[in-house]
Amino acid sequence: MLETKISLNIGWGDCDPARIVFYPNYFRWFDQSTHKLFEFAGIAMGDLLDQHGGILPIVDVQASFKAPSRYGERIEISSSICEWKERTLKVLHQVHNAGVLTVEGYEMRAWVIPDESHPRGLRSQTIPEILKSAFVIK
Amino acid sequence: MLETKISLNIGWGDCDPARIVFYPNYFRWFDQSTHKLFEFAGIAMGDLLDQHGGILPIVDVQASFKAPSRYGERIEISSSICEWKERTLKVLHQVHNAGVLTVEGYEMRAWVIPDESHPRGLRSQTIPEILKSAFVIK
Amino acid sequence: MLETKISLNIGWGDCDPARIVFYPNYFRWFDQSTHKLFEFAGIAMGDLLDQHGGILPIVDVQASFKAPSRYGERIEISSSICEWKERTLKVLHQVHNAGVLTVEGYEMRAWVIPDESHPRGLRSQTIPEILKSAFVIK
Amino acid sequence: MLETKISLNIGWGDCDPARIVFYPNYFRWFDQSTHKLFEFAGIAMGDLLDQHGGILPIVDVQASFKAPSRYGERIEISSSICEWKERTLKVLHQVHNAGVLTVEGYEMRAWVIPDESHPRGLRSQTIPEILKSAFVIK
Repeated sequence: MLETKISLNIGWGDCDPARIVFYPNYFRWFDQSTHKLFEFAGIAMGDLLDQHGGILPIVDVQASFKAPSRYGERIEISSSICEWKERTLKVLHQVHNAGVLTVEGYEMRAWVIPDESHPRGLRSQTIPEILKSAFVIK
Repeated sequence: MLETKISLNIGWGDCDPARIVFYPNYFRWFDQSTHKLFEFAGIAMGDLLDQHGGILPIVDVQASFKAPSRYGERIEISSSICEWKERTLKVLHQVHNAGVLTVEGYEMRAWVIPDESHPRGLRSQTIPEILKSAFVIK
Repeated sequence: MLETKISLNIGWGDCDPARIVFYPNYFRWFDQSTHKLFEFAGIAMGDLLDQHGGILPIVDVQASFKAPSRYGERIEISSSICEWKERTLKVLHQVHNAGVLTVEGYEMRAWVIPDESHPRGLRSQTIPEILKSAFVIK
Repeated sequence: MLETKISLNIGWGDCDPARIVFYPNYFRWFDQSTHKLFEFAGIAMGDLLDQHGGILPIVDVQASFKAPSRYGERIEISSSICEWKERTLKVLHQVHNAGVLTVEGYEMRAWVIPDESHPRGLRSQTIPEILKSAFVIK
């Protein structure tokens, strides 16, 4: 399956008074990395609705923090889809700092389409085959 | 003229390793305070386009930082419109901490309307009288 | 056990182009709500090291997103400690919007103390009884 | 004088419901770019106090927004010190998107040293010559 890696330097403003990354920032980076993964697979997350008729909101997210990272350190985030279910997919994210796995987590996203039976309605549906196949290495 | 005040406690994640507020957060709070000011005047910033045919993007912003604030401290942000020009308005923001003025800044926003002559086009225009009058205390 | 509630209005900048809360912001609010909970129990999270000789970093976090919230909506976050283990505690967070549970998650935090046997070293330890007892309603 | 450039892709979470960058994020990037500029000059912003006895807090900041940027677009931030005064320096930041200048602003930072005559005291002082000379291209 496809995997992408992004690297970034921990910024001053990413850290809190304990001088380590303020943990919500990892989810900001997870989201960026997921977008990158989809882009690499040829799917523009910002155009999902226009091109495929649905969107992929987060339904569940989890992360384990094994070691802190600090201002100026460089981290690498590896992301891949580790699970496909009928209506959901799971993106696995692993954060390495100097070769050490420091954070591991996932985002579960559901395929939902507009449901006109009520305002702002959305309902989950089977993930289109074309989305799944984009992640298969040919 | 109308003035609004919002109060908030400085959060752990709002501060950087120097243990003071990471300055971009002040602009996040300025934006919130402007939205509150407009709401108080009866104008929903999120519905400007639908209700008044235009939007009010930021064109210029400035702030002076006189003293730092720290985790757990409570600040109060006072906001009012300090200048109306034909096509722009200026929102003045003053941040007090324990009665002391610690940050002062402004946001200049322009009234712009969609311009169909080019994609995503916008052009500035005279601010509608109805917007201005909403800020006059009756 | 103690429970705290904080209320906040969803800000313009808290939302993404899908016009719903960008999910990492919920963790920012979880963290704020945990600090509030500890403060209510008489424990200053920023002074843990000075007063109790340790800190409470996040080791695991999870959230389920049941419904989105939008700009201008008001949410309420209820937080309480739902589990004490020897070396960890779990803070349960529930986010309600107009009375409906929209997000539910937890932060697991470990009690760790400085370990001088290596630079920046920390090691987990039994949570001091004084911390636990602060959360018991007398 | 030295100049650095950083490039970044606008993230989904960097944009607001108007589908453009939420403006406080530009200051987050200004700060990152300043840190990069100092690093390039051989000065670690995080170690200023230890190595040079002072710090460089922001005293004034300003930005003009000429055109919006959107999710997925790539911007380049060029930064250099455009003014040295006895006790302050000014970092000029220019943001280009597809070759077009879209945001221009500055951060004014003051050289301050700890002042033990009162708690958390700081007082401004002449910028050390060694800092200034680090920015001269040899």
